[in-house]
Amino acid sequence: MENFVYQNTTKIIFGKDTESLVGKEMSGLGNKVLLHYGGGSIKRSGLYDTVIKALKEADIEVVELGGVMPNPRLSLVREGIKLCKDEKIDSVLAVGGGSVIDSAKAISAGVLYEGDVWDFFTGKAQIEEALPVGVVLTIPAAGSESSTGTVVTNEDGGYKKSAGADILRPKFAIMNPVLTYTLPPYQTSCGLSDMFAHVLERYFTNVPNVELTDRMCEAVMKTIIDNAPKVLNDPNGYDARAEIMWAGTLAHNNLLDTGRIGDWASHGIQHELGGIYDIAHGAGLAIVFPAWMKYVYKHDIPRFVQYANRVWNVDINPFNMEETALEGIRRTEEFFKSINMPVRLNDANIPLDRIEEMAKKGAENGPIGQFLPLDEEDIMAILEIAGDKSLEEGE
Amino acid sequence: MENFVYQNTTKIIFGKDTESLVGKEMSGLGNKVLLHYGGGSIKRSGLYDTVIKALKEADIEVVELGGVMPNPRLSLVREGIKLCKDEKIDSVLAVGGGSVIDSAKAISAGVLYEGDVWDFFTGKAQIEEALPVGVVLTIPAAGSESSTGTVVTNEDGGYKKSAGADILRPKFAIMNPVLTYTLPPYQTSCGLSDMFAHVLERYFTNVPNVELTDRMCEAVMKTIIDNAPKVLNDPNGYDARAEIMWAGTLAHNNLLDTGRIGDWASHGIQHELGGIYDIAHGAGLAIVFPAWMKYVYKHDIPRFVQYANRVWNVDINPFNMEETALEGIRRTEEFFKSINMPVRLNDANIPLDRIEEMAKKGAENGPIGQFLPLDEEDIMAILEIAGDKSLEEGE
Repeated sequence: MENFVYQNTTKIIFGKDTESLVGKEMSGLGNKVLLHYGGGSIKRSGLYDTVIKALKEADIEVVELGGVMPNPRLSLVREGIKLCKDEKIDSVLAVGGGSVIDSAKAISAGVLYEGDVWDFFTGKAQIEEALPVGVVLTIPAAGSESSTGTVVTNEDGGYKKSAGADILRPKFAIMNPVLTYTLPPYQTSCGLSDMFAHVLERYFTNVPNVELTDRMCEAVMKTIIDNAPKVLNDPNGYDARAEIMWAGTLAHNNLLDTGRIGDWASHGIQHELGGIYDIAHGAGLAIVFPAWMKYVYKHDIPRFVQYANRVWNVDINPFNMEETALEGIRRTEEFFKSINMPVRLNDANIPLDRIEEMAKKGAENGPIGQFLPLDEEDIMAILEIAGDKSLEEGE
Repeated sequence: MENFVYQNTTKIIFGKDTESLVGKEMSGLGNKVLLHYGGGSIKRSGLYDTVIKALKEADIEVVELGGVMPNPRLSLVREGIKLCKDEKIDSVLAVGGGSVIDSAKAISAGVLYEGDVWDFFTGKAQIEEALPVGVVLTIPAAGSESSTGTVVTNEDGGYKKSAGADILRPKFAIMNPVLTYTLPPYQTSCGLSDMFAHVLERYFTNVPNVELTDRMCEAVMKTIIDNAPKVLNDPNGYDARAEIMWAGTLAHNNLLDTGRIGDWASHGIQHELGGIYDIAHGAGLAIVFPAWMKYVYKHDIPRFVQYANRVWNVDINPFNMEETALEGIRRTEEFFKSINMPVRLNDANIPLDRIEEMAKKGAENGPIGQFLPLDEEDIMAILEIAGDKSLEEGE
């Protein structure tokens, strides 16, 4: 086990009707809030009205900025920063999913920085301070509601980059599973895929003797696997929605990082896909992860065997460990397919003509991934596996 | 799943050599610290010198109060409060295990309260403020290093009572597994028993649909079970010590409470034992828990079957679920015995002549426990089971 520092200060307020508490929670953070959100879904669902009412009752002045898109855009972040400065806003409330929260985090850091906010994403500057951010979560997926990170896409060049700092952890996250009932099935599935991938990134580590966190990772993955068909078959079932919502947070709140070093190459490769093709993050991960697994599993067969056995209940074949490992990978791919995620590039209508460009960009700052560091050629090979229909199960 | 609020702000600093960071961490909390500890073990181990040096280097003035005993005494807490007031101390550093931390927490709350600190334990007053507390943990057991609670024994009447408040969570907890190498085997075992019991109290709940936290509880319990023999057979093995140390914190940092309601009757009964007999907390729990299980399992056989199957790898006998449930209980008792814990009252030289008195005192404020509320008669019956050698396995 590696030495670690772990502190997650986000206050989780979880359960039915909790969104009505948003005024009380925000009033501890400021007097004039930027209400940040995406499209019209929060207006159609009535959540917008509930939030506005609660903020008004708490005597909080509200300035609005909607229009956040999946893969949140740098241009809107810059617009938000300008708005906050002009209007002397002292706090930010993100009502939505990971894209809205990430956009809100980037704004919150950019407001208190003299330079251009993109500097945080290129590594030119470190985030030292930020306006306090509160969250009302509507999509269980990214885990951004209690994480330190933000991912923003710079439309100029198609760069999707991340930045992070402890100060970016939201002060509170209101999580009502009922608010997720109206998610379209595709978005529900993208969320499932995203949170599952967050655990996978942490699970595949070279650090030995990480039993407790292995088991916690397995607990989260098994919960996602068990509840995925339930939320898809019965979108208004509270219990499964609740399990998935809490799993999405725990998958990415850094608890599962304690004492270990995650991989994150698959996220890196998916960022290249997302930068060019605007594919949903979870969908991209469902394509990349099985391909990554097929490329790297020989690096640590026992770990893939443990994964197959504990997460997928595959009996260990002691005479052929590789077979067991591969069966775990096969079931992972099968799981993504069962929730209607693409598992090959052409399932998502992504042609193979730019994979060389993506591989080059992915490795432009050196090899990516900790489990098995990948250079341009490796990324290229993984994208080729991701593009090869002949490797698909049963074909 | 129940609605919940979860926030744990304690900064965990985990790993080798981390105790040298105590000066830096304390310097964020105050300028004049009460250094609180137990007996001479931290002086013999050299930890005391390391801590003093680090505090001096951070220009922190130190006032000492040692002498904390297991089942920390109200009299010493009162002495600590007076000392803090007289010396105008602004922060408290606990160096030790749960008793030292609990004593430090009680002092930290008592200093800022006009009345008598015991008021917090009788329910006469609520803890509203407290001096900041830092921790250097030396015994993985109680989980007090990141919990909201404190348990103190009033020598006048033998009352062992708890109090709690969010403000009591330590600001930081330094956890170096190497510091636990020198723990005597008996104390190591008491710690294992204590942390295992903390998970059991949460696991046996009447709240349905708590899959994720069930699985997280199982992850912590399985880690304790796997690593218990390792730390006893090889006290200087870093990896197993580290697993146990982190497990002890996660067992009691409230994550495993999220969405569920724990039982806590066994802790209540053990507090009665501890109040009279001064038995180590973990040892008392090893006696009470198997007896409690035998008394209550029929209330929810499927839950006991899940426990037997997932935690103890007992095959489920679908034709006789009760048999499976009982096998899980038998293995629990076997586990406590395997780590040299007492499992009957007379194993700990506790006579049966005062069980009526304990049952009466245990239920004096009404039934205890949430899984199956227990009145005086129930507690009496459980203590009788705990006293009955004939119920012991193989006899």
